[in-house]
Formats: sequence, C-alpha cells, structure tokens
Amino acid sequence: MSKLVIVGTVAFDAIETPFGKTDKILGGAATFIGLAASQFNVDAAAVSVVGGDFPQDYLDLLANKNIDTTGIEIVKEGKTFFWSGKYHNDMNTRDTLATELNVLADFNPVVPENYKDADYVMLGNLHPIVQIGVLEQMTKKPKLVVLDTMNFWMDNALEDLHKIISKVDVITINDEEARQLTGEYSLVVAARKIHEMGPKYVVIKKGEHGALLFHNDNVFYAPALPLEEVFDPTGAGDTFAGGFIGYLTKTDDISFDNMKNAVIYGSTLASFCVEKFGTERMQTLSRQDVHKRLQQFSDLTQFDIELS
Amino acid sequence: MSKLVIVGTVAFDAIETPFGKTDKILGGAATFIGLAASQFNVDAAAVSVVGGDFPQDYLDLLANKNIDTTGIEIVKEGKTFFWSGKYHNDMNTRDTLATELNVLADFNPVVPENYKDADYVMLGNLHPIVQIGVLEQMTKKPKLVVLDTMNFWMDNALEDLHKIISKVDVITINDEEARQLTGEYSLVVAARKIHEMGPKYVVIKKGEHGALLFHNDNVFYAPALPLEEVFDPTGAGDTFAGGFIGYLTKTDDISFDNMKNAVIYGSTLASFCVEKFGTERMQTLSRQDVHKRLQQFSDLTQFDIELS
Repeated sequence: MSKLVIVGTVAFDAIETPFGKTDKILGGAATFIGLAASQFNVDAAAVSVVGGDFPQDYLDLLANKNIDTTGIEIVKEGKTFFWSGKYHNDMNTRDTLATELNVLADFNPVVPENYKDADYVMLGNLHPIVQIGVLEQMTKKPKLVVLDTMNFWMDNALEDLHKIISKVDVITINDEEARQLTGEYSLVVAARKIHEMGPKYVVIKKGEHGALLFHNDNVFYAPALPLEEVFDPTGAGDTFAGGFIGYLTKTDDISFDNMKNAVIYGSTLASFCVEKFGTERMQTLSRQDVHKRLQQFSDLTQFDIELS
Repeated sequence: MSKLVIVGTVAFDAIETPFGKTDKILGGAATFIGLAASQFNVDAAAVSVVGGDFPQDYLDLLANKNIDTTGIEIVKEGKTFFWSGKYHNDMNTRDTLATELNVLADFNPVVPENYKDADYVMLGNLHPIVQIGVLEQMTKKPKLVVLDTMNFWMDNALEDLHKIISKVDVITINDEEARQLTGEYSLVVAARKIHEMGPKYVVIKKGEHGALLFHNDNVFYAPALPLEEVFDPTGAGDTFAGGFIGYLTKTDDISFDNMKNAVIYGSTLASFCVEKFGTERMQTLSRQDVHKRLQQFSDLTQFDIELS
C-alpha cells in the first residue's frame, strides 16, 4: 500500500459565522487533510507541532482514523497555534480576528523514519521554508508532491514560495491567489504561467464556483455542489486537498483521467466539511454518505449528448 | 417540425471592451437568440421592431439563417433601438453609456399568423407587458415558454414581471437577479422561491461560472468553457437562451434529461459568442466548430468513477 505524508498545521480555531460562533475547536490544515484522506484508509502520517495545551483526545481522534501521529511534535511548555476568524454574510470573505503562531514559530518538521520513502506527499499551507524542509527529508523522490499555499506567502515570502513551487508536481491555489501569483486575470493564462514555474498540474479552487484542474492543454472542471446553506467554510480547501491526495494515494494512479476522479472526490468531501463547524461533519462521515453524494455530483454534471 | 417564436429586440449596439471598440453594429436579444437557434435548422420566426435606418442586409442575414423575419415590423419614420456599453477590465461588469429606445417605445408585437400555433416560445428580454402580449396571441397553449428578463424590470415593472413569470415554464435569469427577485443569497433557495412563482424550470446564469438548471429537487450544472480571453460578453446570455430553446425545439423533447443537453448546447454556443464583437463569431459558426467544442465540454466535465 502506498504511503502518504501530510504536513500542515494542527491547531485551535475559533470561528464566527452568520449561523453562530465557536469556542476554541480542533482545526488546522493537516487535521482537515488527514480527516479527508482517512476516508480512503490510506497509510498516512501527519507531520506538525502542537503545544502542551493540546488535548490528547484530538490526537487520538486522528489516530483512530488511522493517521500516524508520531510526527506531531508536542512542545510541552508551548501553546498550540491559534486562529480566529469571522465570516461575512456572503461566506466568501472573512476577517481574521487573531493569529497566534505560538509553537508554529519555531516549527522544525520531522518526517517519521518509516514515512521518509512515502510515494505521496501533501504539503499543507505553511511557510515555504518548512515545506522545503519536509521534501529534503524524503529519502527517495516521491511519485507525487502536492502543494497548497496562500496569498500570505506571496506577500511575505515570495522568493521561498517560488522555490517550493518549482519542486512540486501539483499546486492547489484559489482563483484570486492564482491571479496574484501570475498577474493574469484569465485563469487559463494564469494556469499556463504556473505550469512554467514548475507544477505539471495546477488546481485552481473557486470556492462555491468549483475547481479547475489544468495539465498542459487539458482542463477538467468540478463544480461545487449547490448547497442550501454553507454553515462554515473553514477547512473546505484543505478537505478538498485531502480528498484529492487521499484518492490518488489509494488508487496509486496519477494519470490525468484518475486526477479528474480525485478532484471530484475532493469536491465531494469539501461539500460535507462546510455543513457544520470545523471538523464536526468530517468526524462522523460514513462511506454511505460519501457514496450518495458522489451520485449527486454525477447527476449534477453528467450528460448524454450523441457526439457522433 | 416544431415551430419556434422568438420575441426580443433587434438593435444597434456600440461596444467598448479592453480589446477595442465598435461603431454601431448588429445587436439585440432576438438577433442573438435567432442566430443561436438557427444552428438547429428549426422553423423559427423573430418578432421585433426596427426603424427605417435598419439595413436590409441585417434582416437578410437572419432570413438566410432560415429565421422568418415577417414579424419584424419596420417603422420607416422611426429609429432602431440603440444600446451602448463599456466593459470593465474584469469583463463581468459594464457601464451602460446610452440607451435609446426609439421605435421600441411603442412596440406592439405581432406574431405572424402561421406561427401563432408554435409549440415553442422564447420571450427575450423586453418589457413584461410586451412579453405578455405575445403569449396572448398564441392560438394554442405552447409546449414550452421560456422567459428571459433582467433586473431593470425588477426595479421598474415588478408587478408586470410577476405576471409574466407566473405564465412561463422556464425562466433564465442571472445569479444576482435571482437574488434580487427572491431576497435569498443561496441560489438553491432562490430557485425554489422562483419555482413557487410559476416556472417549473429555473436556469440561473453565472457568467464565467456557468449555469445551473433547477427542476424541483433536480439540479444540473453546466460550466462555462475556461477561455484564454473573453473578447466581448455582449449577447452571451441571449445566445445561451437561443441554443437552449433551439435544441429543445429541434428535439421536441422537454424531459429534464434533454434539458441538460439543451443547457450544454446553450453554454457551448455562448462560448463562441464571446470570442468576437457582437454577432461576428455567430455569423460564421459551422457545425464542425460546434461539434468540436461540444467534445471539449464533454472532456471538461465528464468523469468515470465506479459508483457500485
């Protein structure tokens, strides 16, 4: 069975939406990625750091989903990374109320020994230097490295960001970030410019408008499921990435056709993530739930025009 | 063969985009709808009005595409409806520079005698009272009436708009207009509220983000083709509607499954419309062009996940 290394934050989030607000709850990119990837029962390890204030229950939650947590360093005297945000009424924009790096400020990721030969690596959103540090620990070239990043690093660490972008096979990035990174409004042109920076595959996430997968001249589009309400968008992008890499790790097939399926799985899992606060929905997700929603995605997009 | 009645403006447009600007060129909802529907060689008639300043060449252009133009009244002493607009850099927003109603101000539509029993009626964007006037001339109940409208009538003739909405089978409307009409942000909820106003089918157009077709609890989504550049969006919505109704008229099948195909045809034709100014691209469109792009739409959206 292929192995998957997931790097990213494991964190506390406090979230406010038009539907309510939470205290400090479980969050973080590696958490959402791990929960999504665990749907595929892959052999995965999370690499991250938390403080002494982080409940063992939360680590157990990941471990019970078959995510190896030995790569999550616990800094006893430190505090866990904390993010707080408030979503506006349209749910597409948010204000960050607090970002406390805490133990993340000095994070030196350590990939567990038996995962250094993993074929699949998911670099969740973190400082590009940390992401590079993870790749350098791999003892053989992975089959597929997927990078997630955000505009914060474009503003604050562009040179390092370009370094890691040049080393990965797939980048997932949202539409505004793709435009910022390339200076191009057209996403088709932006994707081509990002190809030239290194990644053979470019996934552009458009939130409620779905996601586009680009590979040379091939394009695939997965819509987001039209929902009555988006309860909390936090973690949707990470859940998408986790579904994407989890499916590829499970099937061990990185053809473009199989990546289409991976994008559909990512969109499907993300559509659950937004139904409740934080990781709540992802914790109880069953195979039946996922299967039923995949059918909805199929009904939503598949048509039958005779193209003879 | 089923017959189609198309009602809408036949007009002069002057367009400015980041790519250039035009003098007065051929435009109007009925023009774009007719050119799109003509791809299906249906038996169609356009109902509209122009002034003495309208070139016979433009009328011939429609007639040569097999669109009956006897329902286009020519008011010799009047001037043709003129619209002028300027698109912003993102091409999603525009300023209207001029709207000269001219002969449209006193337009009394007359459906040609031999089209009063048509099974398909496309009510292009016009004053709701004019749209109602057309329906009242039909001597038998059409199989399918499709309504296109816009926010202008919500602001200025809401009561009349609700009257025509209650009489049609399908409404095509853009996302912001659906939100304005219903006061709901979620397009799923908005579509449900519009169902309750009358139309059994609701098409919500999202521009570069594609289009959604709602029918009770069924949803179908057609993306817009990701394009390197949108040269001129004028007429894209009308072209979508023309492709939609043209395909349904041709196939004479108003099942939900066939409407999915109609939405795909509408999106396909709209993707050509935006490639050049005004109707330019639609005038030279070949069956081969359309066939090739349908294949691109298929490649863009079709996937093959085993849902056993």
